[in-house]
Amino acid sequence: MSLTSTNTSVDVNALYAPIRSDLDAARKVFDDELVSDLFFVNELCDQIRSYRGKMLRPAMLLLSGKAVGDLTADHHVLAAVVEMVHMATLVHDDVLDDADQRRKQPTIRSTDGNVSAILLGDYLISHAYHLCSSVGETYAGRRIGDATNTVCEGELLQNKCRRDDGITEATYLDIVRRKTGALTAVSCELGAFFAGADRATTEALHGYGMAAGVAFQIIDDVLDITGDAQQVGKTLGLDLAMGKLTLPTLHGLANATPAVASALRAALRGQQGVDAGQLRDWLEECGSIDFARAVASGFVAQAAGFLDVLPPGDAKSSLTMMVEFIIQRRD
Amino acid sequence: MSLTSTNTSVDVNALYAPIRSDLDAARKVFDDELVSDLFFVNELCDQIRSYRGKMLRPAMLLLSGKAVGDLTADHHVLAAVVEMVHMATLVHDDVLDDADQRRKQPTIRSTDGNVSAILLGDYLISHAYHLCSSVGETYAGRRIGDATNTVCEGELLQNKCRRDDGITEATYLDIVRRKTGALTAVSCELGAFFAGADRATTEALHGYGMAAGVAFQIIDDVLDITGDAQQVGKTLGLDLAMGKLTLPTLHGLANATPAVASALRAALRGQQGVDAGQLRDWLEECGSIDFARAVASGFVAQAAGFLDVLPPGDAKSSLTMMVEFIIQRRD
Repeated sequence: MSLTSTNTSVDVNALYAPIRSDLDAARKVFDDELVSDLFFVNELCDQIRSYRGKMLRPAMLLLSGKAVGDLTADHHVLAAVVEMVHMATLVHDDVLDDADQRRKQPTIRSTDGNVSAILLGDYLISHAYHLCSSVGETYAGRRIGDATNTVCEGELLQNKCRRDDGITEATYLDIVRRKTGALTAVSCELGAFFAGADRATTEALHGYGMAAGVAFQIIDDVLDITGDAQQVGKTLGLDLAMGKLTLPTLHGLANATPAVASALRAALRGQQGVDAGQLRDWLEECGSIDFARAVASGFVAQAAGFLDVLPPGDAKSSLTMMVEFIIQRRD
Repeated sequence: MSLTSTNTSVDVNALYAPIRSDLDAARKVFDDELVSDLFFVNELCDQIRSYRGKMLRPAMLLLSGKAVGDLTADHHVLAAVVEMVHMATLVHDDVLDDADQRRKQPTIRSTDGNVSAILLGDYLISHAYHLCSSVGETYAGRRIGDATNTVCEGELLQNKCRRDDGITEATYLDIVRRKTGALTAVSCELGAFFAGADRATTEALHGYGMAAGVAFQIIDDVLDITGDAQQVGKTLGLDLAMGKLTLPTLHGLANATPAVASALRAALRGQQGVDAGQLRDWLEECGSIDFARAVASGFVAQAAGFLDVLPPGDAKSSLTMMVEFIIQRRD
């Protein structure tokens, strides 16, 4: 199970070994839920399925459960729920960002327009909650609802901070914890809870998911600058162009030469563009990429620490390696 | 309790007499749910509250429960939930329709932009489901989720039919049942269910809510043509301008002179505008407004018929008169 390979899809498949059949079951629940009597709605949903990537959130939920006890049908439902919530946020994010490509595919907004994309996102979130209410207890819906409240707050805060060069690292991390960490945290927490974990273990898995989610987002923000556009499957440099200050650029603003800092600031404010290659060179030169990767590594270490409460086993090993995978990934 | 008065707000207040304190309790649940640690999010939510109109859906839910048995804390929660879902659809609808005014107030999209409005709608729907999961059983979430799935399908279908002059009355009614009827139907159904109604009564209240919702939407579509812009609180004639074929215009297309039908068709396709006063005159002349009102009256009669299962009482009387109010309203 080599993690240094650049072919990350092989690695992640190996990590999923303990839950492979459960992930298939979750995929089936997902597909069975998204069925309409309107043919064109099903066609739109087929397009959504092409965005399904590594299914990190369902995998984290299932591995968290498996590390603690036995997986049940509720786990499969909840794994499908968190993936559906994630898909809904992607479809709306593409509208917010005017994005035309996602995972090498045209986005719904680019093929069917913003109105369809807004409505389809609403349709996905509605189905996610509908599905969530098929779990025996309202506890799951309460926790998922709490997480999605937080995700929306994170997105609202990010939008409020758009084009603002006065954002601090603390605010950046606050946004990231809310918009990305909340959903990975609740995924791991519910996986453990529904496998009968005690309170301390459930809280530890929540902490693991939060730290892993934050690390994931920081790397996402790094890949927006240093990634291979072909491999990432979307245009690079979009964050800065859309006025989003991320950790590498925040560091760059404080550490680059006055001329570069001024160019970054102008790009953030939308006053002038910056070539994606130029941006990467600038931020690599002043150590901003290394800095952001180091911060992400800190969160990975924090995440791994939360796993100490778990008994040894395949699922625990996968969770441990999954956070390593998160910072080594290339797409 | 005169229903012929043009001052409709007085009438609706009288109809609410049997549930006045319960409606206050629902309002409190609504306000208590929408609290964030982010100050600007609370400010956005304050703006949302100004769109709160007659609270028809909560009132229908509470009256349905009261007509059957005793109201409980669950009813107050569910009344707040259906209002929050409704608010979310309004905020997103304003984005879809490029609307600048709602209930005489500027819309969120016009004051804070489309991105904020999309996110705020998501935030409201998330809180609605979060709140719904505080009811003891998952049944409520399941039924609300089913209704919101249907609402989204209705909106998607409406969007697909935009600028299409080949829509039939059946398709129009299918859209209306889904986008408006589904939520009023589930409101009445859950009100009855949580007051301990038997299956036949629960189903009858669902039928009542569906028919009342369809009548409400038809009148909404009529008021978009014949209303007093000041009283309705938004620009008139928007449906046709946005390419939405509604019942009066559908009738007009089939019954107006060839020249008028051709102008209507061109307006629907977005090829030329039509003055709102001119549109009203055309559709009044060829009986399209009377036709649409007659269809709405048919649904009102259907709704009233469903109430036969209920024992006599104040709540039943209010439900009976509420559908009369729906077709007599002016805003």
